[in-house]
Amino acid sequence: MILYDMDKAPNPRRVRMFLAEKGITVAMVSIDLPAGENLAPGYLAINPRGVVPTLVLDDGTVLDESLAICRYFEGLQPEPNLFGRTPLETAQIECWQRRMEFDGMGSIALAFRNSQPAFADRAVPGAGPATPQIPALVERGQMLSRHWLDALEKRLAQSSHVAGDRFTVADITAFVCVDFAKWIGVRAGDAHPALRAWYAAIKARPSASA
Amino acid sequence: MILYDMDKAPNPRRVRMFLAEKGITVAMVSIDLPAGENLAPGYLAINPRGVVPTLVLDDGTVLDESLAICRYFEGLQPEPNLFGRTPLETAQIECWQRRMEFDGMGSIALAFRNSQPAFADRAVPGAGPATPQIPALVERGQMLSRHWLDALEKRLAQSSHVAGDRFTVADITAFVCVDFAKWIGVRAGDAHPALRAWYAAIKARPSASA
Repeated sequence: MILYDMDKAPNPRRVRMFLAEKGITVAMVSIDLPAGENLAPGYLAINPRGVVPTLVLDDGTVLDESLAICRYFEGLQPEPNLFGRTPLETAQIECWQRRMEFDGMGSIALAFRNSQPAFADRAVPGAGPATPQIPALVERGQMLSRHWLDALEKRLAQSSHVAGDRFTVADITAFVCVDFAKWIGVRAGDAHPALRAWYAAIKARPSASA
Repeated sequence: MILYDMDKAPNPRRVRMFLAEKGITVAMVSIDLPAGENLAPGYLAINPRGVVPTLVLDDGTVLDESLAICRYFEGLQPEPNLFGRTPLETAQIECWQRRMEFDGMGSIALAFRNSQPAFADRAVPGAGPATPQIPALVERGQMLSRHWLDALEKRLAQSSHVAGDRFTVADITAFVCVDFAKWIGVRAGDAHPALRAWYAAIKARPSASA
């Protein structure tokens, strides 16, 4: 199998971090997003949506959503468990993972995609129709990202990890988003002591540099 | 347990449809979203994010993401299976489910939330900061929704169901989104014969009116 990757982008990083936690090695090919390589015919023949990461199995099957790729590996190799063991724990982890995606990554991406010159006519990721940037979304994205960061601080003041008392896929999404938020100028500060302590602990894991 | 619901909103409908397919009955309480009941103190004490659906278990545990609620019930009652049986099938269904959410529901919601007078200062769902509507997002959302509908037609011209040859949670998300898209004036037409045949088949299921 081959994982199509891009070293700086947050979604591929989530998958790399997940694989590192599992101790799984997959052959990777890097796609140059700022140069638009994901929209070139060669890549679109592999993934018509033009997004990364994309996992292509040996029989040609394509998985092009980060969480689906992670859950596939969780199924193949259940330990260390990152998605939950019981129906309730699995649901709680999925709640937190999705809160981090929608409230965090979605907000950060708004500000990022609508401000970067490299994405002037591609404000929405992938191979959809040309989408002009909307400057007002930069402010909206920054405001919502700050709100998400404050909500994460409240959570981590009460819980050692995002979804409870152990490291899960929800920590991966949250950690990657905290780094992604720096790209739009939103950073944890003095008002986020619990978040910063959690961040330092996750940063110390070998998977953080995967 | 209690499921906080809203009859017209697409996310609660996904959960009701899922429960109907499983043959599971849950006590429901309806929340009046247009009137802002989800942002009133009573509901925020239950769910600080202010979104529906929300499932509250007998011990007070709160699950507030549609897919997490569905997956919880899938774990409690595995049949009929709607999320996949093998790691690969599970991952493929999740890919399609997320494509429907991000490319479909996300696009439709952009146009909807940024145009409805009821959401003038609440262009983003839930209890986050006041978020003014951005008129340019109506056009962006409609354009992306049409693109999603065309992509879904291509898929359904090759596959009897969204994620493969049987009904899954990906069909639920897609079906709910096709109806949701009507609210922003985006409808399947003569260019979508496969989609319309699939839609008619799903519409005939008892769960479609749940």
